[in-house]
Amino acid sequence: MRIIPADEFQIERSVEYGMPDQNETVRRIIGDVAANGDEALLRYTAEHDKMTLTAAELRVTEEELQEAYRSVDESVLQAIRLAAANIRAYHEKQKRNSWMDLQEDGTILGQIVRPLKRVGLYVPGGTAAYPSSVLMNAIPAQVAGVKEIVIVTPPATAGAAGINPYILVAAAEAGVTEIYRVGGAQAIAALAYGTETIRAVDKICGPGNIYVALAKRYVYGQVDIDSIAGPTDIVVLADKTADPQYIAADLLSQAEHDVLSSAILVTDSADLAEAVSQEIDRQLAELPRRKIAAEAIAKSAILLVKSLAEGVETVNRIAPEHLEVMVQDPISLLPLLENAGAIFLGSYSTEPVGDYFAGPNHVLPTNGTARFSSPLNVDDFLKKQSIIQYSKTALLRDAEHIMTLARCEGFEGHARAVEIRVKKEGEQKT
Amino acid sequence: MRIIPADEFQIERSVEYGMPDQNETVRRIIGDVAANGDEALLRYTAEHDKMTLTAAELRVTEEELQEAYRSVDESVLQAIRLAAANIRAYHEKQKRNSWMDLQEDGTILGQIVRPLKRVGLYVPGGTAAYPSSVLMNAIPAQVAGVKEIVIVTPPATAGAAGINPYILVAAAEAGVTEIYRVGGAQAIAALAYGTETIRAVDKICGPGNIYVALAKRYVYGQVDIDSIAGPTDIVVLADKTADPQYIAADLLSQAEHDVLSSAILVTDSADLAEAVSQEIDRQLAELPRRKIAAEAIAKSAILLVKSLAEGVETVNRIAPEHLEVMVQDPISLLPLLENAGAIFLGSYSTEPVGDYFAGPNHVLPTNGTARFSSPLNVDDFLKKQSIIQYSKTALLRDAEHIMTLARCEGFEGHARAVEIRVKKEGEQKT
Repeated sequence: MRIIPADEFQIERSVEYGMPDQNETVRRIIGDVAANGDEALLRYTAEHDKMTLTAAELRVTEEELQEAYRSVDESVLQAIRLAAANIRAYHEKQKRNSWMDLQEDGTILGQIVRPLKRVGLYVPGGTAAYPSSVLMNAIPAQVAGVKEIVIVTPPATAGAAGINPYILVAAAEAGVTEIYRVGGAQAIAALAYGTETIRAVDKICGPGNIYVALAKRYVYGQVDIDSIAGPTDIVVLADKTADPQYIAADLLSQAEHDVLSSAILVTDSADLAEAVSQEIDRQLAELPRRKIAAEAIAKSAILLVKSLAEGVETVNRIAPEHLEVMVQDPISLLPLLENAGAIFLGSYSTEPVGDYFAGPNHVLPTNGTARFSSPLNVDDFLKKQSIIQYSKTALLRDAEHIMTLARCEGFEGHARAVEIRVKKEGEQKT
Repeated sequence: MRIIPADEFQIERSVEYGMPDQNETVRRIIGDVAANGDEALLRYTAEHDKMTLTAAELRVTEEELQEAYRSVDESVLQAIRLAAANIRAYHEKQKRNSWMDLQEDGTILGQIVRPLKRVGLYVPGGTAAYPSSVLMNAIPAQVAGVKEIVIVTPPATAGAAGINPYILVAAAEAGVTEIYRVGGAQAIAALAYGTETIRAVDKICGPGNIYVALAKRYVYGQVDIDSIAGPTDIVVLADKTADPQYIAADLLSQAEHDVLSSAILVTDSADLAEAVSQEIDRQLAELPRRKIAAEAIAKSAILLVKSLAEGVETVNRIAPEHLEVMVQDPISLLPLLENAGAIFLGSYSTEPVGDYFAGPNHVLPTNGTARFSSPLNVDDFLKKQSIIQYSKTALLRDAEHIMTLARCEGFEGHARAVEIRVKKEGEQKT
């Protein structure tokens, strides 16, 4: 693995906007589904997924769900249940209450916090299935109090339901209420606009291919979306006290995701840099997904810094999705680490602990968006409402100022809505 | 004003995606500014705003700010300061703390809450100026702890700085740290990508014309954005106890904004409906902006419902930006009113109280997005980070489950990052 000075490292970022023809395809599919509903949905499913379904077959049945439970490995099911409990416990702590502020003049100001009503979750199809991703997306919604959580996922031949059974059991464990066999931009269109079979949702979450990403971007505003996910990445910030074997294993666990993954070590120790580089080569040779991982590692780097302070600065510049801190006193750096989605402290907090099990969400800001975005959390499934109950005393007291501001902005009608009350209340007084 | 049964009312919504040529223009301008920086920025300013500026003249100076203070009306300045204090007090209550959860096995899980570092606020130019909008956008950012709050606004000839002095003083009162004379898609591009003079921000807020809206949609992902605002709207939910004069004045205050504004009364009282309709005609005749208001009123309606329960259902279907509740016992309806951005209770809570003064934000979800969006709030300027410090005990206890899940998903490298630690810790034990 190449070792370079940190200040020579250029971050490449590109927001995915798709090619014009991809955007045109997405626009056409969405318009078609919005106009023609189930008929269009089934037509695209036949065309893209090679599955001829009727509208009645779109929804996964209770029997299919039961069959999935019978077909999964017991140890996996147990792990899914334990992980779900941890994820639920962590996200419970994110909940918040409505509040009211009662003022002496009789005015009440407040903020109501409510769950969204109906949320859609896209689950990619293909050969690999990621039940952990189902848990991480659905449980925060369930904890928020969302009543209807809907999964859409492209049907394949694998599994009785045409959907991987681990996806189905994870969905059931996470409180998903409806599962539909439909994928691609057409599934996003159905969630945004609704069809005869799939009612429209308020928000769409979950990862997908470029067509899914472009479709989410397109329907944003009609419904809410979570974010447009980019390739996954990790930075390990380490000093000479860190174990090079652990670091190499952690970098590789990120690199095996995808050839676009980024796995970076930032260290002030040249010895550690060299040891990790060698250890990477050793471990990589034995990794099943070594072809993917090697390509990702080749584009990644070990960044040498002169001090941990420069290390912190480098981390903040990269704004990683995952950050592991393996230094002598990791918590002392915490206040300084401004840009990172999830921060793993110490030698035992390897990223997979967070990916699968500990409880915090593994849906994290990618592509440097940790500058302004957060891990998926309960707030993402809540909305707020402002409450204003102004008292007569308060209105009469503040009327002049409100009218002044309204008139300064040229809104005489606004001023008069106040004035008509002041006049009438004045009359009643005399 | 037309009176119709509520179930005959069709809601028209359209998400603004712009015309192909508008999108093409925006794409071109953004690419140009991203590539050519200040030079492109100044070129578009000369072309679109007819202002020839140098890079050094982009930023409003301290002297220009002082001049603005000298030129504004004292009563307006006082009202701005009182409004700012109320807005600040309300938003202070939205702040939240970082938290940590210390577990018995030595594991620490937590959530850090931090402000964004740098936020940009678009302020439209043109003849009218809306200092209240500057307060409502900038103060939540300031309360969140954002250190750098930047305004961009197209220069005009009005005012010493080419910018309306009320905008400038509101910006100064709200803690804005930099103000630049630049507008349109080019200003959004500068905020997203940065130029020699204007550094890139983490998030862009504020309303603008179609080019600004399309530019915000385009740069979303590169930076965060607030939302794409649609036309403003109000619903008044009233029973026979309500004052028709007040309701008419409130509907008109909304209608005067814009011909696309929507002002709807929902009532179970045919008498009230008739009285409001007549009162609208009477008040409209004397309103300075009656041409705009009349057009908005013509497209709006009074909706008759059979019961308040149907009224509540109608409100939830419309999902208004502003909702006034003028019924005998307004607070009893509060739990049922699921979809509304800001809820004004009782006869004295006319919308302008909230638009200008009470404290809650006037940037609210338009176009039915109250189904899933919130008023602008402090959370919009905060981000979260997850913290995981797993203990050795916890890792050894959970290792098997984590490896099971990783292997179920085909990620052997993830499993090995756990396994290598288990093996080594086992060795150390023996």
